[in-house]
Amino acid sequence: MSHTARVNEILSWYASENAGVRVNLARLLNTGKLAGTGKLVILPVDQGFEHGPAKSFAPNPAGYDPRYHVELAIAAGCNAYAAPLGFIEVAAGHLPGAIPLILKLNNSDSLSSGHDPISAVTGSVRDALRLGCCAIGFTIYPGSPARNDMYEALRELTLEAKEAGLAVVVWSYPRGGKLQKADETAVDVAAYAAHLAAQLGAHIIKVKPPTAHISEMNAKLYADKVGELKTLADRVAHVVQASFGGRRIVIFSGGETKDESAVLDEIRGIHQGGGFGSIVGRNAFQRPKAQAVKLLGDIIDIYAGK
Amino acid sequence: MSHTARVNEILSWYASENAGVRVNLARLLNTGKLAGTGKLVILPVDQGFEHGPAKSFAPNPAGYDPRYHVELAIAAGCNAYAAPLGFIEVAAGHLPGAIPLILKLNNSDSLSSGHDPISAVTGSVRDALRLGCCAIGFTIYPGSPARNDMYEALRELTLEAKEAGLAVVVWSYPRGGKLQKADETAVDVAAYAAHLAAQLGAHIIKVKPPTAHISEMNAKLYADKVGELKTLADRVAHVVQASFGGRRIVIFSGGETKDESAVLDEIRGIHQGGGFGSIVGRNAFQRPKAQAVKLLGDIIDIYAGK
Amino acid sequence: MSHTARVNEILSWYASENAGVRVNLARLLNTGKLAGTGKLVILPVDQGFEHGPAKSFAPNPAGYDPRYHVELAIAAGCNAYAAPLGFIEVAAGHLPGAIPLILKLNNSDSLSSGHDPISAVTGSVRDALRLGCCAIGFTIYPGSPARNDMYEALRELTLEAKEAGLAVVVWSYPRGGKLQKADETAVDVAAYAAHLAAQLGAHIIKVKPPTAHISEMNAKLYADKVGELKTLADRVAHVVQASFGGRRIVIFSGGETKDESAVLDEIRGIHQGGGFGSIVGRNAFQRPKAQAVKLLGDIIDIYAGK
Amino acid sequence: MSHTARVNEILSWYASENAGVRVNLARLLNTGKLAGTGKLVILPVDQGFEHGPAKSFAPNPAGYDPRYHVELAIAAGCNAYAAPLGFIEVAAGHLPGAIPLILKLNNSDSLSSGHDPISAVTGSVRDALRLGCCAIGFTIYPGSPARNDMYEALRELTLEAKEAGLAVVVWSYPRGGKLQKADETAVDVAAYAAHLAAQLGAHIIKVKPPTAHISEMNAKLYADKVGELKTLADRVAHVVQASFGGRRIVIFSGGETKDESAVLDEIRGIHQGGGFGSIVGRNAFQRPKAQAVKLLGDIIDIYAGK
Amino acid sequence: MSHTARVNEILSWYASENAGVRVNLARLLNTGKLAGTGKLVILPVDQGFEHGPAKSFAPNPAGYDPRYHVELAIAAGCNAYAAPLGFIEVAAGHLPGAIPLILKLNNSDSLSSGHDPISAVTGSVRDALRLGCCAIGFTIYPGSPARNDMYEALRELTLEAKEAGLAVVVWSYPRGGKLQKADETAVDVAAYAAHLAAQLGAHIIKVKPPTAHISEMNAKLYADKVGELKTLADRVAHVVQASFGGRRIVIFSGGETKDESAVLDEIRGIHQGGGFGSIVGRNAFQRPKAQAVKLLGDIIDIYAGK
Repeated sequence: MSHTARVNEILSWYASENAGVRVNLARLLNTGKLAGTGKLVILPVDQGFEHGPAKSFAPNPAGYDPRYHVELAIAAGCNAYAAPLGFIEVAAGHLPGAIPLILKLNNSDSLSSGHDPISAVTGSVRDALRLGCCAIGFTIYPGSPARNDMYEALRELTLEAKEAGLAVVVWSYPRGGKLQKADETAVDVAAYAAHLAAQLGAHIIKVKPPTAHISEMNAKLYADKVGELKTLADRVAHVVQASFGGRRIVIFSGGETKDESAVLDEIRGIHQGGGFGSIVGRNAFQRPKAQAVKLLGDIIDIYAGK
Repeated sequence: MSHTARVNEILSWYASENAGVRVNLARLLNTGKLAGTGKLVILPVDQGFEHGPAKSFAPNPAGYDPRYHVELAIAAGCNAYAAPLGFIEVAAGHLPGAIPLILKLNNSDSLSSGHDPISAVTGSVRDALRLGCCAIGFTIYPGSPARNDMYEALRELTLEAKEAGLAVVVWSYPRGGKLQKADETAVDVAAYAAHLAAQLGAHIIKVKPPTAHISEMNAKLYADKVGELKTLADRVAHVVQASFGGRRIVIFSGGETKDESAVLDEIRGIHQGGGFGSIVGRNAFQRPKAQAVKLLGDIIDIYAGK
Repeated sequence: MSHTARVNEILSWYASENAGVRVNLARLLNTGKLAGTGKLVILPVDQGFEHGPAKSFAPNPAGYDPRYHVELAIAAGCNAYAAPLGFIEVAAGHLPGAIPLILKLNNSDSLSSGHDPISAVTGSVRDALRLGCCAIGFTIYPGSPARNDMYEALRELTLEAKEAGLAVVVWSYPRGGKLQKADETAVDVAAYAAHLAAQLGAHIIKVKPPTAHISEMNAKLYADKVGELKTLADRVAHVVQASFGGRRIVIFSGGETKDESAVLDEIRGIHQGGGFGSIVGRNAFQRPKAQAVKLLGDIIDIYAGK
Repeated sequence: MSHTARVNEILSWYASENAGVRVNLARLLNTGKLAGTGKLVILPVDQGFEHGPAKSFAPNPAGYDPRYHVELAIAAGCNAYAAPLGFIEVAAGHLPGAIPLILKLNNSDSLSSGHDPISAVTGSVRDALRLGCCAIGFTIYPGSPARNDMYEALRELTLEAKEAGLAVVVWSYPRGGKLQKADETAVDVAAYAAHLAAQLGAHIIKVKPPTAHISEMNAKLYADKVGELKTLADRVAHVVQASFGGRRIVIFSGGETKDESAVLDEIRGIHQGGGFGSIVGRNAFQRPKAQAVKLLGDIIDIYAGK
Repeated sequence: MSHTARVNEILSWYASENAGVRVNLARLLNTGKLAGTGKLVILPVDQGFEHGPAKSFAPNPAGYDPRYHVELAIAAGCNAYAAPLGFIEVAAGHLPGAIPLILKLNNSDSLSSGHDPISAVTGSVRDALRLGCCAIGFTIYPGSPARNDMYEALRELTLEAKEAGLAVVVWSYPRGGKLQKADETAVDVAAYAAHLAAQLGAHIIKVKPPTAHISEMNAKLYADKVGELKTLADRVAHVVQASFGGRRIVIFSGGETKDESAVLDEIRGIHQGGGFGSIVGRNAFQRPKAQAVKLLGDIIDIYAGK
């Protein structure tokens, strides 16, 4: 099966990468219900590590079993499934080759607190290879005093991944240092965070949906742009533009659990703004399976332009 | 000898691992009186390093000689013997191949104090291989400000161990940071700690028997679950569920020396809750040998369902 | 095509380097409108990383697309294009071999602040090789308490680059520690900074145009030289002399956006002082393309002696 | 020449080690006047590094020349000579193969002060191999806040040494942190320190002769043992017992310069307690050569049971 | 040409080194006007890095060009030329093989201040090899709180250098911590510093000419030796004795610029005390070339015993 024109166009943005990387990007783009559209919906399940098992899975206890999530991702027609080492080990052993896997290489737990935001590196490129993954995932916290350590860890993993033909997905979450809570999703900060991930060599960039807030440091710079950033679609378009003029895949997180219509409204905004898709975790796996498949299906339909 | 159905079932949970890892897991499951049951009783002797030789061995001076412990583990029908480098060197030289050995790769002594809880890495995968061990052991302290250093050290050792076909046993002991003393064995914290170990790639997870205490940070989350966590069996079941829905081997420590009936009551609770076994140190080797063999035998009988 | 006498002379200054390094230096010197003159005008675009995408590209939104910059560098007849990893990946994939590429290996973003000045290492020599670059770029901040970390990172990258036949370009920007703001461009400090870069093995050194200010620490030493450092040309000559008696290529940054005549006046001063060229970023890519090509052309004409 | 029964017995304690390690242990046990007895007297000369050359050698200026010490060790019939890199380089070049050499891999000088007790690693296993040594020596300071760094450095060197067939000698000197001056030689602390060295994989352990003092932290634990630890022989026996039930070679330092009868009294106590020998530095090389040979001879006679 | 008896004698002190190291030591001893005498006069030019280019070269501007210095060293009949990476790159390219080169591997600049004294490692053994050097140079600051970092860096470089057949020259400059300014050249401290360098494996040790001052910490120890340390020759003899009883090459720095007779008086003292030579920088290259050649010639004549 040859690629669609859109997939070929997207792959052309990564022309400097070796064939292995482009094959794995193609696998991501050619899987699930959105195959060939250039859009992506990914199921990520790292909340057990980040927030604890009960907080994550008690609402839908089937999710304590890691087989549940990879099965959900397949049933819903997602492009890929992303998780930390332990969950990916189960997925790779349970249904090898059934869906592209993204190994999240760093994670942060909630049993400790009060430190500079920095995640532990809990997996490696060699893990991703032995588990048959198509990509690595890595979280950076721009703004954190420890940001340089993260950028440097990412640099080494990115080079190793690319040489091994793996794609690189970067979660870019501004946090810490001089950034206020509201700044973390401010549209100016989100655009900068997405640009940084692209400059660091990410193929796929994940940010949070940007708000209309402008951080203090950029108040003057954006003074005359506020009018153009009123809607979520406007702001998504700004973030996508900041990501190499739209020539990098930028996807958006689903964030905290909310009702379905709120979720779908947000997706429509992302889609209208030219976003490349969503990564939906808690809003998927914390619902009963049938509801989750339905909601993910509705999200996919929006991105498919139905 | 072919494996029992239960052993095959357990091995299927680790389907992504290479043959070497599964062979070593099978060795652990197919040794001693509990061979084939899917249950494990392990003798660990790291107290000389952790608490000092006199504190550990004066109650039963035969234990100053490291040959004593590996002989005790064999006599009692344990599945494995775990210890730091020096003791494993003696065991491996004294009775090579007589019982599966677990090399504890990090340890903390008591001559110093007042620092962030973190162990020294005192052994390596190459040591485990040259000594014919079937697994490495590693302790993490979730909650410690130094937790990320431990997770990252574990990540490297785990990858190296798995590539070499060794099993990985993780002692997950919450401690430090914002955790109060009572939180260290709180059921919510124990469940989180077990989940973290599983996500970090552990094959076998060791935690302390969980108490009915709920840590401040999860008070709200567990408010409506307290009624379901009244017995040790309930709490063990919660911790096992948090460990990949019961698809990881979770065993429990014996803790401080106590009388036999208290020990056996605790074992019954663990067994009823679906725990996979126990790791019993001081309650074994600080008793005279005949008493220790008897007590370990009684523990084994409970796990064997006798 | 054989080299000009001037290019051969310059290459003779690097006689201890292997053939690969000298080939890449020759590529830099033999590209663009200044080919063969021994002069260099380079387009650098790292401002998206350093200052943010909107601050950098909103004045001329075509610059959000990284293809724009490499096309501009070629259209204007520059010797080379320098940028961080992400932008170079696009350039190398878009127009492979069309212009010498310099991979900037370390960068600093503006979302965080208040730390010792130190950049994150965001690329590697292996990245430069897989992307077909002819040189690496690296920024040091002499004066920073973290300077030794930077010098040592540079040392390792320089050795690896030279062994791989790549040229080394060092941005030497005094900053931090006991240095006052005015000291950062003081002529005595600039001369020292250029000398340090040369001693660290740089082939091409980039400094800011030196001012007539003398830092407190050298007030006495320069007391009788102030008269000889009145003009920019005088000061450039001093910096060039401090760079191995003129036997290292020293180029100067364009600095903040300003009007064309101010830019060209500065270039004339650099040229008269024996500077080897300029690296012009914001003054180029923040103007409309036609204006940028015109301005770069005027700059090139000055260096060409037209 | 076949080994004596005692040497074979001692070698059997190290049955897990490769042939190279056991050959080198045998070389140590089969050299000098104590050859075959299972006892060891070693001449160490690291005081020039640790305390300064004049403080060490002015009392007997012949000792400024490093050839003096290795010649003294041979003349006196010692089992081995131990020193830092520079002195071992001279010994290995001056009289290659004449006596087993132990390269002390870490050392601490006295020109600086007030820091956590930690030594610099000043030699490597590759140095020990190129110089034909039979063992490495390493000092740990249990109790120091930096103890984990030392244990981890030792772990790496020990593994490398054992893989290369070298024996490992550990100087275990409690110091720093919560330890008071008197605790450093307290019998409870000395026993713990010896046990730690054994657990860390040492073949030969060196501690200071234990005093009757009990550290605060173990006051209760040892309350009923004080009566059994009245003589140096009692205390040495306790330390030897703590060292794997007597199945590790434990030797004792000679400490500060004192008169001959005090030295010999101490040796008798060590011998009666089952100590394996002594490491005598200042009490040897700071005396005129004839006196030193005589004193070492008397010490050897005690260990030989004459 | 066979070696002189004196050169053979000196080489015998390094009998444990491989042939490559001894060949390079022989090259140093058999070059220049002092060839064969066992004496050395070396021209070092690291002042541009350490103190700045104008401070170093403005007194004699010919020195801005690095070719000047290597030509001066050859013209004056020096044994070797020592400098940081950049200057050695020029020397190696300009006159390859014309004089033994010593690559100074660490250096400290003066743009920053107020930190623990520690130099940046700015070159490597692989640099020394690719540039055809016969030795590496390294500076340690005994007394500095960072001394252990320096000793450990030196250890790794020394091992690598010796395995590659290069000689090792150590600048041992006590500084920092509890040392007062006057202590830095105190004869007791200088003797200790020289001994440390020898123990760390140095072949050639460079210290400053020792003063009659005794540091507080050794006041008692040296109380009865003060009478024997009155002249520079006495003190040099003490430092040489502390350096393995005279069996290591110890040379002395020239220090700050002074008049010729003061320089030559100092040289005579060093020569009478048995010093092996001098390393003369500012007193050479800051004079006009003819004067410098003359002064170096006079120094050489003293060491040649003329």
